[in-house]
Amino acid sequence: MSEEVRLDFQRPERVGFDEAILCARKSDAQLATIMDHVLERGTRCLLTRLEAEVFGRIAPAYLERLDYDPISRTAYLNWNPPAEQEAPQIAVISAGTSDMPQAAEAIRTLTYLGAPTKQFIDIGVAGLWRLLERVEELRTFPVMVAVAGMDGALPSVLGGLVPGLIICLPTSTGYGVSNGGETALHAALASCAPGLTVVNIDNGYGAACAAFRALNMIRQAAVQEREVRSHAWPFR
Amino acid sequence: MSEEVRLDFQRPERVGFDEAILCARKSDAQLATIMDHVLERGTRCLLTRLEAEVFGRIAPAYLERLDYDPISRTAYLNWNPPAEQEAPQIAVISAGTSDMPQAAEAIRTLTYLGAPTKQFIDIGVAGLWRLLERVEELRTFPVMVAVAGMDGALPSVLGGLVPGLIICLPTSTGYGVSNGGETALHAALASCAPGLTVVNIDNGYGAACAAFRALNMIRQAAVQEREVRSHAWPFR
Amino acid sequence: MSEEVRLDFQRPERVGFDEAILCARKSDAQLATIMDHVLERGTRCLLTRLEAEVFGRIAPAYLERLDYDPISRTAYLNWNPPAEQEAPQIAVISAGTSDMPQAAEAIRTLTYLGAPTKQFIDIGVAGLWRLLERVEELRTFPVMVAVAGMDGALPSVLGGLVPGLIICLPTSTGYGVSNGGETALHAALASCAPGLTVVNIDNGYGAACAAFRALNMIRQAAVQEREVRSHAWPFR
Amino acid sequence: MSEEVRLDFQRPERVGFDEAILCARKSDAQLATIMDHVLERGTRCLLTRLEAEVFGRIAPAYLERLDYDPISRTAYLNWNPPAEQEAPQIAVISAGTSDMPQAAEAIRTLTYLGAPTKQFIDIGVAGLWRLLERVEELRTFPVMVAVAGMDGALPSVLGGLVPGLIICLPTSTGYGVSNGGETALHAALASCAPGLTVVNIDNGYGAACAAFRALNMIRQAAVQEREVRSHAWPFR
Amino acid sequence: MSEEVRLDFQRPERVGFDEAILCARKSDAQLATIMDHVLERGTRCLLTRLEAEVFGRIAPAYLERLDYDPISRTAYLNWNPPAEQEAPQIAVISAGTSDMPQAAEAIRTLTYLGAPTKQFIDIGVAGLWRLLERVEELRTFPVMVAVAGMDGALPSVLGGLVPGLIICLPTSTGYGVSNGGETALHAALASCAPGLTVVNIDNGYGAACAAFRALNMIRQAAVQEREVRSHAWPFR
Amino acid sequence: MSEEVRLDFQRPERVGFDEAILCARKSDAQLATIMDHVLERGTRCLLTRLEAEVFGRIAPAYLERLDYDPISRTAYLNWNPPAEQEAPQIAVISAGTSDMPQAAEAIRTLTYLGAPTKQFIDIGVAGLWRLLERVEELRTFPVMVAVAGMDGALPSVLGGLVPGLIICLPTSTGYGVSNGGETALHAALASCAPGLTVVNIDNGYGAACAAFRALNMIRQAAVQEREVRSHAWPFR
Amino acid sequence: MSEEVRLDFQRPERVGFDEAILCARKSDAQLATIMDHVLERGTRCLLTRLEAEVFGRIAPAYLERLDYDPISRTAYLNWNPPAEQEAPQIAVISAGTSDMPQAAEAIRTLTYLGAPTKQFIDIGVAGLWRLLERVEELRTFPVMVAVAGMDGALPSVLGGLVPGLIICLPTSTGYGVSNGGETALHAALASCAPGLTVVNIDNGYGAACAAFRALNMIRQAAVQEREVRSHAWPFR
Amino acid sequence: MSEEVRLDFQRPERVGFDEAILCARKSDAQLATIMDHVLERGTRCLLTRLEAEVFGRIAPAYLERLDYDPISRTAYLNWNPPAEQEAPQIAVISAGTSDMPQAAEAIRTLTYLGAPTKQFIDIGVAGLWRLLERVEELRTFPVMVAVAGMDGALPSVLGGLVPGLIICLPTSTGYGVSNGGETALHAALASCAPGLTVVNIDNGYGAACAAFRALNMIRQAAVQEREVRSHAWPFR
Repeated sequence: MSEEVRLDFQRPERVGFDEAILCARKSDAQLATIMDHVLERGTRCLLTRLEAEVFGRIAPAYLERLDYDPISRTAYLNWNPPAEQEAPQIAVISAGTSDMPQAAEAIRTLTYLGAPTKQFIDIGVAGLWRLLERVEELRTFPVMVAVAGMDGALPSVLGGLVPGLIICLPTSTGYGVSNGGETALHAALASCAPGLTVVNIDNGYGAACAAFRALNMIRQAAVQEREVRSHAWPFR
Repeated sequence: MSEEVRLDFQRPERVGFDEAILCARKSDAQLATIMDHVLERGTRCLLTRLEAEVFGRIAPAYLERLDYDPISRTAYLNWNPPAEQEAPQIAVISAGTSDMPQAAEAIRTLTYLGAPTKQFIDIGVAGLWRLLERVEELRTFPVMVAVAGMDGALPSVLGGLVPGLIICLPTSTGYGVSNGGETALHAALASCAPGLTVVNIDNGYGAACAAFRALNMIRQAAVQEREVRSHAWPFR
Repeated sequence: MSEEVRLDFQRPERVGFDEAILCARKSDAQLATIMDHVLERGTRCLLTRLEAEVFGRIAPAYLERLDYDPISRTAYLNWNPPAEQEAPQIAVISAGTSDMPQAAEAIRTLTYLGAPTKQFIDIGVAGLWRLLERVEELRTFPVMVAVAGMDGALPSVLGGLVPGLIICLPTSTGYGVSNGGETALHAALASCAPGLTVVNIDNGYGAACAAFRALNMIRQAAVQEREVRSHAWPFR
Repeated sequence: MSEEVRLDFQRPERVGFDEAILCARKSDAQLATIMDHVLERGTRCLLTRLEAEVFGRIAPAYLERLDYDPISRTAYLNWNPPAEQEAPQIAVISAGTSDMPQAAEAIRTLTYLGAPTKQFIDIGVAGLWRLLERVEELRTFPVMVAVAGMDGALPSVLGGLVPGLIICLPTSTGYGVSNGGETALHAALASCAPGLTVVNIDNGYGAACAAFRALNMIRQAAVQEREVRSHAWPFR
Repeated sequence: MSEEVRLDFQRPERVGFDEAILCARKSDAQLATIMDHVLERGTRCLLTRLEAEVFGRIAPAYLERLDYDPISRTAYLNWNPPAEQEAPQIAVISAGTSDMPQAAEAIRTLTYLGAPTKQFIDIGVAGLWRLLERVEELRTFPVMVAVAGMDGALPSVLGGLVPGLIICLPTSTGYGVSNGGETALHAALASCAPGLTVVNIDNGYGAACAAFRALNMIRQAAVQEREVRSHAWPFR
Repeated sequence: MSEEVRLDFQRPERVGFDEAILCARKSDAQLATIMDHVLERGTRCLLTRLEAEVFGRIAPAYLERLDYDPISRTAYLNWNPPAEQEAPQIAVISAGTSDMPQAAEAIRTLTYLGAPTKQFIDIGVAGLWRLLERVEELRTFPVMVAVAGMDGALPSVLGGLVPGLIICLPTSTGYGVSNGGETALHAALASCAPGLTVVNIDNGYGAACAAFRALNMIRQAAVQEREVRSHAWPFR
Repeated sequence: MSEEVRLDFQRPERVGFDEAILCARKSDAQLATIMDHVLERGTRCLLTRLEAEVFGRIAPAYLERLDYDPISRTAYLNWNPPAEQEAPQIAVISAGTSDMPQAAEAIRTLTYLGAPTKQFIDIGVAGLWRLLERVEELRTFPVMVAVAGMDGALPSVLGGLVPGLIICLPTSTGYGVSNGGETALHAALASCAPGLTVVNIDNGYGAACAAFRALNMIRQAAVQEREVRSHAWPFR
Repeated sequence: MSEEVRLDFQRPERVGFDEAILCARKSDAQLATIMDHVLERGTRCLLTRLEAEVFGRIAPAYLERLDYDPISRTAYLNWNPPAEQEAPQIAVISAGTSDMPQAAEAIRTLTYLGAPTKQFIDIGVAGLWRLLERVEELRTFPVMVAVAGMDGALPSVLGGLVPGLIICLPTSTGYGVSNGGETALHAALASCAPGLTVVNIDNGYGAACAAFRALNMIRQAAVQEREVRSHAWPFR
């Protein structure tokens, strides 16, 4: 059976950002075909869940076009950093080193999409002072990604302290009743703090996309205010 | 055992909107005490999950200050509608009459908070044309609440068609493997459409709060752009 | 089929406190038989999960010997309050009125056993200041019962702030993924705060018994220190 | 302990197609014994879940009689392609390369059974236009196998657009709440689109057998109409 | 909040049969509105999950146009039986009286759609001879709906004996580990008998729609064979 | 930390058979210590879940006293076959080669305990004739172990055909909703066939012990009848 | 839709005991039809899960032939007690009044079948001495039914102390993680005591049937020993 | 992405004991960074879940400061044993060698914290006499950690026999319905023995911390009694 690949190059026009390639369960040949498509078209591409071992087997011809990060398991193909950097409007918050890969996947995705982030690490609730001494700064961010495994208590505490949009990213860190991230997921969904939103377990890419959708709307509001001052709200 | 009540009147300053009272599992006496607190303080309050039967037992003295809606099971205490209405920036989308109570809870909460909404009903995927003929309009909304029970396929389809922030509200509609909303919840979380966010099953209030957080950030961006034109990004 | 009852009157000697009667699923006749046994023997008894409706059917002859509390659904049979009250060493902490019945079951059980308690209500994490302003006082208690439903984040925050023994009592408050208390239970078990212990969902009686076991050991340490000053540790 | 094998050679007469051999959990010796049985009898056989590694250990003597495909992990033993090929009446539809192994198992099984298929790849709902531009063609197929993992939204959309029999094949693609295919399975079962049928997760072989049962009945209807024109319905 | 209704009157053209109204969770007013829509348009409609209690509250004006069956909880609105009856091609098989409501929902739906059925009751595996003495007759049906609760063993046995398409309808009959039908559902999906298809627990309506899809394809094959004899296969 | 071992040599007197050693999760050193204990005492021992790899590391000194079988993963230490063999009274029934390891564990355990068995393989329900042609023979066995994975339909069919004690041994064979044996377990427990008993998934040792308990009681009845003819029932 | 009933009057010949009627989910009319069938045929019948409320609606004509027990919710139709009573060989053991209904269902079923039982109540592990003082007596029973809810620890303790066949009957007593009997069920299945067998949660009827199957085999062994003294084992 | 580490050196002042480092999911580089922090600061540290394989890769420079135990998978960094040893007040009780790693993790943690323990092995309920002959000694301990996998019956039996605080440590020992420790966890939580407390599956470290919290309170009671004899209770 032959294997075909068909990419969704129109996605940016429809939803505002381009398709990423989930490398898990793809063969080396499939990945090469996809990269060929991208390079032929002269466009760019984000690869996620690209294990170091798989990356190690990629042919040298591709490597010079690839920017790989082993912690987040992401690679940028044919990507150029933006000429100038705006101030970060998205905070990525996590409790410690265990949740680093998922936080890193979110950060790398946002960087790829052109949205700078600020990372806050070791903001766990078991050492509450580490969170409290950063609250004032966190309150200035319009969008936050809160990464938490185990009991997932961080989003609940955060949700009662800040006004921005909070996107909870539960992680599969932990054992026993942590149940592969289910407890952190359920705790975020059942939180007594109002207005939290949640993405799938370990889905750093999805959390980043959701944050980027919100950021896009915020940017658009500012742009439209700037450009068409005297008009009614431009979205409608 | 006596029962005390202590409300969180400072919440608006911290998170941007006021505390709601979840009426489920509260006694009539507790509800009366809470309403007394609110009225004494001269403030306002949203009551959720207020069953018609419980509402029917509320003393007449409170009724003139209450605006009750039986479908959403919400009541506004001491609430006044805003003097002028801006154009709605939040869409609430559902597939049919079965999901009406949850959609209504979201809409009523947003109305209470001063965020006008536009409702789209019968936007189900089993009759895809009903969705397709509204796509262009949906693309103009910066924030959407997508209400879906059973198989929860609506958010996945929507997520590939529009650029705005999508907050999925899974509902407990259905039977058998629908499993009280779990399938709709999991389908939204596992969606192949990128950047969906999700709230707890039947949590119309929570979906509204999340939408309001995003709207607040969008409004703030426009306001700050208007006011401090030449400055750097104002959140930071 | 006849129904017999056989009580465990030797339990105090073995474990330090007397058997309670779980009234759920017992017929009126069985409850009467049990109360007869207790009264004949001239001893006392705690009844738990005694619904107001069932209590309303109890014959008048028993009522004068019964002290019933509808919130906790407990009754004391043939019980006399202690002559003098010592200062409370057990704190019972909860987030709001929704968890009141379970907190009350723990408090009433401890009162019955002769262990005074201090109740802290509205100590939820969504309004963190309510917890923070009580931390110093909470740090003086050797034993705490932390009652929490929904996302169960309270014990995690508490566990990082105080040195005493913490017994988490998850409650079935909530809906959707709260899953009848399972999320609160799992969050307490998977907590990143070290050294939390947990009892079954809604098991206020069990939490009280655990707290009482710990209190007994603490009391015994003081007593033995007082009495046998110069000896080695008396338990062994 | 010796191991015996006993094949069900009468199955074609009872159910219309022959037994397949599930190679998972079988030893090399057992597989050899089974192939010997088949070759001795001069009949043919389909092997499923035959991993490339296991295939690599098969003795050369068998290899010339084996047609192996690594993507679907299937092998045909002693099989000859049909002399002439009829037009395909079964469509196999999937969303992308991740579900390829399961789709391939269904296609290879149907090919073995003599039922040609047409494959539609990249028919996912996140890029809805790819589905919409194929709808008219899909409407001409009497039987479809819809392969979908993750949120499993494809069958729901398809079910509202086409009149044929739809057999949903959920796959274990995905992570987190995808839960090894459970979400895709449940979404297909709970679908709001009427008249979908479902097989076990990753059961490409079973989906093919179900499609073949339906095809057999359709073929029989045409044959009987042709042959016994003036009679009542021949099945009865 | 007002409630609107919008029916999918084009469904027959798209999928071959008309929309049914799931009455569960609909208010009396909503049902009346729906029936008005149907009657105004002069078309017909099937109502499912219509509890006897709800039916008892329907206004007399509608009753003469309604054909209600309490066991299946279905009603036909504005329906006329077909002028002549063809021989049944769909068998509905169940093990006993416990599964009668679900079997009846399937039969009533098929009758409404114009597909006569033959019902086989008490075909359980615990009394195997009752199944064996009907096997020859069952082998003549091109489509079967196999209704089974508890351990759901019936479809597995049936699947090894007959060549037709088998649609398993698991039911919520049973207690303990029957788990509301989950065991019957899983047993059908995991069956060792090849080519079974399955619908949601208690979904008699869905099983009927699936059976009707298959029947439509069979009928079409015969019709096309009759009409366009010398042509190639007409679906394509 | 040192590791001690303490065997239960009195078990035969209490329950009628000796303790087995579960080798899973035991270190090589622990296994050696246990075997030393047994050999020193001059008694015998059954080892279960002894993987071939672990067996390969056992010191030669022990090997001559060990009778190992790789399919069942069991070994007899210091065991001698009985001088004369009685006719088997326990049947071990399974559907095919996939369940062979579990069936073999039961058979090997019973052989060790001195209870000869007769094995019936390929008695699956998908090929019902294979079961039916053995029913008369199966009816002569007082005790049966029915091994079944996947949908676990075998015990239900068997239970309606034979009078003996049936011990169901569900296996983890299968994938998807087979769920590691849970479906087979639940199907056996929820069976419509009356009087089935069940053991844990893959617990061939436990099924054998249960069968041996029953056999012991049957043997004892015969013995006591023989010896104390004119007395009342001897167990009491 | 009419409802038919078809009883399995040949079951005693096949499996050694007659069919019982599960009254749950049957209408009054269905129960009357079944009783008519039984009375016409002049045979007898056991009715299970017959709620007091349903029993109260049975027509007087049937009542004189019915022996009803409300605790076990069973009735005997047309049943006569045996002329002489043999000594009980089956023990039914439970921990207290909460498990009485399930224990009673087992006892009543065995009484109906002609197998006298001895009941042991209050044999719980929390008051271990109550179990220990009965161990010697329990060791004389060839068959035991161990009824246990909540943590289900009774069977594990019992299994290490007695040689007879143990049939565990888990009950739905308890709350929270007791999970409707699942914990008791799983604890019995996962027990460290060897050779326990288990039936479905609350399935007192099934436990009795399993006990009766074992008793039948024991009786047969004695009978055959008596009758055919010098022959080989008679079952074969 | 760089990785930072930030330790919680103030924990002892807040909760009475120092932070441990969970080594699972940490890279070698992260572990080295953490150890550097600890050594620079001149403090000490406990490492848990440190697999032998990871330990084998630690640089020699650290090894002389590390005390590693492979069974418990723990290491002490920069730790010195206490000058004099008090009598143990904490008992750690387990049923056999399978639960040794978890028991050892608890013991090693307590030793690190300065709390001597006494270990009781082979205290299982299947061999009840092994428990009964130690009961008098167990009754002298104020705190017990009860380690149990599989059916988790040990805590229930223990809870009815001793007055001290019992901390249940369920383990993932077992297979099938043991379900990775879930059954042991649920059995401990649902126990009929009053006043048991529970920690997460395999969480030996957490059980030790809970025991240490209780011990600290007991020690403090004795100390305060000694020092401030005539005062009221010092905690308050």
